[in-house]
Amino acid sequence: MFLIGVNQSRGALAERAKSSQPLPKSTLGKTAPDMSSERRFALNCWYAVAWSHEVGRREPLARTLCNQKLVLWREADGGIAAIEDMCWHRLLPLSMGWLKGDEIVCRYHGLAFDGAGRCTHMPSSETANPNARVRTYPAAERHRFVWVWPGDPARADPASIPDLHWNDDPEWDGDGKTMFAKCDYRLFIDNLMDLTHETFVHATSIGNSAVAETPMTTTHDANTATVTRIMENVDAPPFWRTQLGKPGNVDRWQIIRFEAPCTIVLDVGVAPTGTGALSGDRSKGVNGRVLNTITPETDTTCMYFWSLVRSYRLRDQSLTTQLREANAKIFIEDQVVVEAQQAMMDLHPDKPLRRLDIDAGGTRARRIIDELIAREEPPR
Amino acid sequence: MFLIGVNQSRGALAERAKSSQPLPKSTLGKTAPDMSSERRFALNCWYAVAWSHEVGRREPLARTLCNQKLVLWREADGGIAAIEDMCWHRLLPLSMGWLKGDEIVCRYHGLAFDGAGRCTHMPSSETANPNARVRTYPAAERHRFVWVWPGDPARADPASIPDLHWNDDPEWDGDGKTMFAKCDYRLFIDNLMDLTHETFVHATSIGNSAVAETPMTTTHDANTATVTRIMENVDAPPFWRTQLGKPGNVDRWQIIRFEAPCTIVLDVGVAPTGTGALSGDRSKGVNGRVLNTITPETDTTCMYFWSLVRSYRLRDQSLTTQLREANAKIFIEDQVVVEAQQAMMDLHPDKPLRRLDIDAGGTRARRIIDELIAREEPPR
Amino acid sequence: MFLIGVNQSRGALAERAKSSQPLPKSTLGKTAPDMSSERRFALNCWYAVAWSHEVGRREPLARTLCNQKLVLWREADGGIAAIEDMCWHRLLPLSMGWLKGDEIVCRYHGLAFDGAGRCTHMPSSETANPNARVRTYPAAERHRFVWVWPGDPARADPASIPDLHWNDDPEWDGDGKTMFAKCDYRLFIDNLMDLTHETFVHATSIGNSAVAETPMTTTHDANTATVTRIMENVDAPPFWRTQLGKPGNVDRWQIIRFEAPCTIVLDVGVAPTGTGALSGDRSKGVNGRVLNTITPETDTTCMYFWSLVRSYRLRDQSLTTQLREANAKIFIEDQVVVEAQQAMMDLHPDKPLRRLDIDAGGTRARRIIDELIAREEPPR
Repeated sequence: MFLIGVNQSRGALAERAKSSQPLPKSTLGKTAPDMSSERRFALNCWYAVAWSHEVGRREPLARTLCNQKLVLWREADGGIAAIEDMCWHRLLPLSMGWLKGDEIVCRYHGLAFDGAGRCTHMPSSETANPNARVRTYPAAERHRFVWVWPGDPARADPASIPDLHWNDDPEWDGDGKTMFAKCDYRLFIDNLMDLTHETFVHATSIGNSAVAETPMTTTHDANTATVTRIMENVDAPPFWRTQLGKPGNVDRWQIIRFEAPCTIVLDVGVAPTGTGALSGDRSKGVNGRVLNTITPETDTTCMYFWSLVRSYRLRDQSLTTQLREANAKIFIEDQVVVEAQQAMMDLHPDKPLRRLDIDAGGTRARRIIDELIAREEPPR
Repeated sequence: MFLIGVNQSRGALAERAKSSQPLPKSTLGKTAPDMSSERRFALNCWYAVAWSHEVGRREPLARTLCNQKLVLWREADGGIAAIEDMCWHRLLPLSMGWLKGDEIVCRYHGLAFDGAGRCTHMPSSETANPNARVRTYPAAERHRFVWVWPGDPARADPASIPDLHWNDDPEWDGDGKTMFAKCDYRLFIDNLMDLTHETFVHATSIGNSAVAETPMTTTHDANTATVTRIMENVDAPPFWRTQLGKPGNVDRWQIIRFEAPCTIVLDVGVAPTGTGALSGDRSKGVNGRVLNTITPETDTTCMYFWSLVRSYRLRDQSLTTQLREANAKIFIEDQVVVEAQQAMMDLHPDKPLRRLDIDAGGTRARRIIDELIAREEPPR
Repeated sequence: MFLIGVNQSRGALAERAKSSQPLPKSTLGKTAPDMSSERRFALNCWYAVAWSHEVGRREPLARTLCNQKLVLWREADGGIAAIEDMCWHRLLPLSMGWLKGDEIVCRYHGLAFDGAGRCTHMPSSETANPNARVRTYPAAERHRFVWVWPGDPARADPASIPDLHWNDDPEWDGDGKTMFAKCDYRLFIDNLMDLTHETFVHATSIGNSAVAETPMTTTHDANTATVTRIMENVDAPPFWRTQLGKPGNVDRWQIIRFEAPCTIVLDVGVAPTGTGALSGDRSKGVNGRVLNTITPETDTTCMYFWSLVRSYRLRDQSLTTQLREANAKIFIEDQVVVEAQQAMMDLHPDKPLRRLDIDAGGTRARRIIDELIAREEPPR
C-alpha cells in the first residue's frame, strides 16, 4: 500500500486540488462555541502511546490517551498490560506505585492489580473484593510502537493497526523521537498534509520556494488520503543536496499518505534530473520515509511519535543519529507554530479556520476522521 | 484522655474494624458533582493557624483559614490580634503594611486598624469613620500554637481547644514543622487514621510488613475516634530499632486518636517483648507522640502543623533536631501521595472514594466532621 | 493647558475634596457580580501602545489593546501599520512572521497582508481572494509614542491624542519606560490621582508625612480632572532635596491632571520658601513632569508608559538615566500594591471599593471614563 506509484498519483483517479469540490462547512467548519461538546477523535481505533522500549518490567509508564489516564507495563511473557491509572480504592495514580511480577502495587495502601484490571490483593484482607476492578485496554505492539485501543474492546482487531512497517524493516534504517505538544492532534495532520509550509516554517532548513510554487494532486479512499507533489528539474534544498552528494538539478517528490485516524507517511526524496525517478526508477536518487503518528492525549494536547528512515547508507548509526537530531529541530519549528495556532483558537473559539487550495489533503483527512466519529455517535 | 489504655482499646466497647456496620454512603460517599457547594469544614471550632513564635510585634503574619484571609500580630500585652486581611478602603491586604504599636497600618494610604478591627486613623481626616471596620476573629494561644475560631465569636470557648499538651509539657521534648499542602485537609486525616500506608508510602523508612498485616480496633465517642494496632513480638523497623538501641523482638503499639475537627495524636513506641508494655508498663521501651493538626486553608489546600515529641533522652537538642528533620522527610512522602490523590479527585469529581476495613478510623473521623458541619447548617 | 496656574486651582471654580458632593454609587460603586459583563474602557479613544522607537521596519511588534491582539510595523514612508494579529487563513499570530517591504508575511503558509489588512499573496494562487482581509486600526505617532484607536475608524481624529508634548519638547529633557502590570488600568489612575499614597507606598524614597497631611483641591471639566496639593514652607523629601541642591524649607507643589481616557501628567517640584513659586515664579526652584499613560490590554492587565522629564540641567544624559532608573524602582512599588489590590478584587468580586476624601480626583476621573463608555453603549 505504501508503494503508491508516482504515475498513479497523477492518473485519472486523482482530483486536482484546484478543482476539488467545496467541502461541506462541517468538515473544517467553524471551530464554534459548540466545540467543547464536539468529539475531536474516534475511539474505536488503535493509537500509538509509546515506543516499545519505553514499556518495561521495572517501572510502570503513565500515559494519557483520548482524555483517559493509562498505566502500562510489560508482563513476563512479553505482552503489554494497559489499565486505568487510578486505584479503585482512593484514586491514587497507580503509576506512582511499583511492579511486582505481572502486577502493579498501589503506593498508598498496597492494593495490587493485574493486567486484566482485577484487584489481586487488598491490605488486611485475605481475599480481594471481586468488584474491585479498574478498566483495562486492548494493547498491541507493532513497528516499534505500543498501540492502545480506547474504544469498545470487542472490536479491537490488531489487523487494523496503521502501517508503519518501515520502522522495523531491514531494508530501511533510521530512528525517531516523541514530541508532547499543547494542541489538538489534528493541527499536526493539517500541517503534514500540506508541505507548502516548509517554505515558510522551515525557511532556514529544508524549505525553498519550489515547494510552495508547485501544485499538488490529491487522491483518497475511505480510510486514506494521499497528496502528491512532483518538482521536476529543480534546485535541491540544502538537506537533500547533502544527502544526494552531487551537484546539478534534481527531480523531487513528496507523496504524503494519511491513514485514519492519525498516521501520516511521507515518501520524500530526490534524484538527478532525467535518471528516471519520476517514471519509477529511483535507484539513482536518495529516498526517505518520514513516519508520523499523532495521538490525542486530551482535546488540546497530543503525543507526536515520529521516525525518519531511509533506504540508503544503511547501518550507518552516525548518519541515523545526525538525521534524527536534525529532524527533531525542524519538527520543533512546526510545534511552535501549531501551539501558537491552538492558543489563538482557544482565544477566539468562534473564528473559522479557512480552507485554501493547498488544504485539500488536510481537509480530506479531517473529513475521514469526522466520518469515523459520526459512525460512533449514537443516533439522536 | 490521651492515656487510652491498651486494654481498653481491646475491650468490650471496641468495635472491630472487620465487623463495623456499613457506614452511610454520605460519610465518605461520592465526591460527586455537588461537591463544590458542599461544606468541607466546620466553622465553630478552633483551628491552629501558626506556631506561637511566628506571631510577633515586628511583622504582621498573613494566613488563610476556611477560605478567609487573616492577618495576625501580637499586642503589647502578649495577646494575639487576628483580623480580616483586607483594608476596608481599597481591599489591599493589610499584611503588606506594618505594625505601629498595637495597630496595623495599610501600606497603600495609611489607614490604621486595631485588633478589634476598628479603623483608628484615616489619611487627611481628623476622625475615622466609625463604619470603617474589618472583621475580627477570636484567637488564643496554647501548646505552642496560635488558634483561631472562624465561626460565631459568641461561641468561642478556649476550653475546647484540642489537646496537644505534650508540645509544652516538661516531661516531653521535641519539635516540629509546618507543611502547606495542595489538598483537602481530610485527606491527611484519612492518611493518619490508618497507618497501613506506612508499609507502602514509607517502604524505605519506617514501614515494614508487620503494620499492614496486623488488624486494628476502633473506638469512638461524639468528638473523638481512636484506632489501636498492637504488634506483639515483632521485628522492629529501622527507626524504632535505633531509638531502642537494643536487638531482639519487640512489642509495638500505634494508638491513633482523632479529636474533632482535625487534630490527631499518635501514641507510638516499642518495648522489648515481654517487658510488660502491653499490660501497662512501658518503662523498658521508648515512647513518642506524633502531634498533628491539619487546618483547612481553602477547600483544596491546608496547613499541616506537626510536632514529634518523646519521653526519653529529654533535653537532647541534637536528637530533637535529628528526629524533626527525619520526620519532615517522611511527611513529605505523605504529602506527595495525598496531593496526587487530590489531583485525581479534581479530574474525576464523580469517582467515589472506596472504603476498606482499614479505613474504619478515617471513616469515623469524617462522620464526626460531617455531624459538626450538619449542626451548623440552617434547617431547610 | 498644562500651565494650570496654582492660583486657579485654588480659585472659585475649585471644589474642595472635603465638601464634594457624594458621587453616585455607580461611579466607583460595587465591583459587583455583574462586573464581568461591564465595559471597563471606552473604545473611541486614542491609546498609547508603544514607544515610537519600538515600531520599526525589521521586526513586527505584537501588542494587546482593549482585549484585541494587534501587530504593528513601520512602512517605507514612516507611517505606522496596525492590523489584527491573526492570519485570516489558520489564525496564526502574524507577529510570528516577517516583514517584506510594507507587508507582513505569515510564518505558516506565506500569506502576505498590507497595512490596510488586505491579503496580497496566497500560496499556490495567482490572485488573492479579495475577501481575505484582517481588521485594521487607525494609528498615529505623537510625543514619542504610537497611538492606536480601537473603536470606530471613522471617528479617529489625531487632534484628540492626549497631550504629552513635554516628551519631545526641546525645553524639557528626560526619558521613561514601560511597565506591564496585572491589573485593571483604572487602579493606576486611582493611584496617581491621589499622591497621599507616596507617604506609605514610597515611605523609603519620595514619601514623607507632609503629603498625607496636606489637603487637596479638585477641579474638572468634561474631559479632564485636576487635583492640586500645595505644601508651603515644608521640609523637602530626599529626592527633591537632592534635585534642588540647597538646604532650607521649600514650597512644594503637586498638580495632577487627568485627561481622558487614561493620561495623567504630574506637575511636581519645589522651590526655596518665599521665592515666589506659589505666585507664579518657579525660576528659583526645580520643576518636573511625570508623564503617564496607562493603556488597557485586557480587563485585568495593562501597559503603563511613563516618562520623567525636567526643565533644568537639560542635555545631562547621566542625570536623565539616573532619574529614569530611580523612578522605575518607585513605580514598581506602586505596581506591587495595585496588583495585590487586583488579586483581592478578583477574590472578592462583591466587595466595594470605598471612597475617602482623598479619592475625589480618582473618583472624578472614573466618572469621566464611565461617561465615555456610556456614550458608546447602544440605548436599550
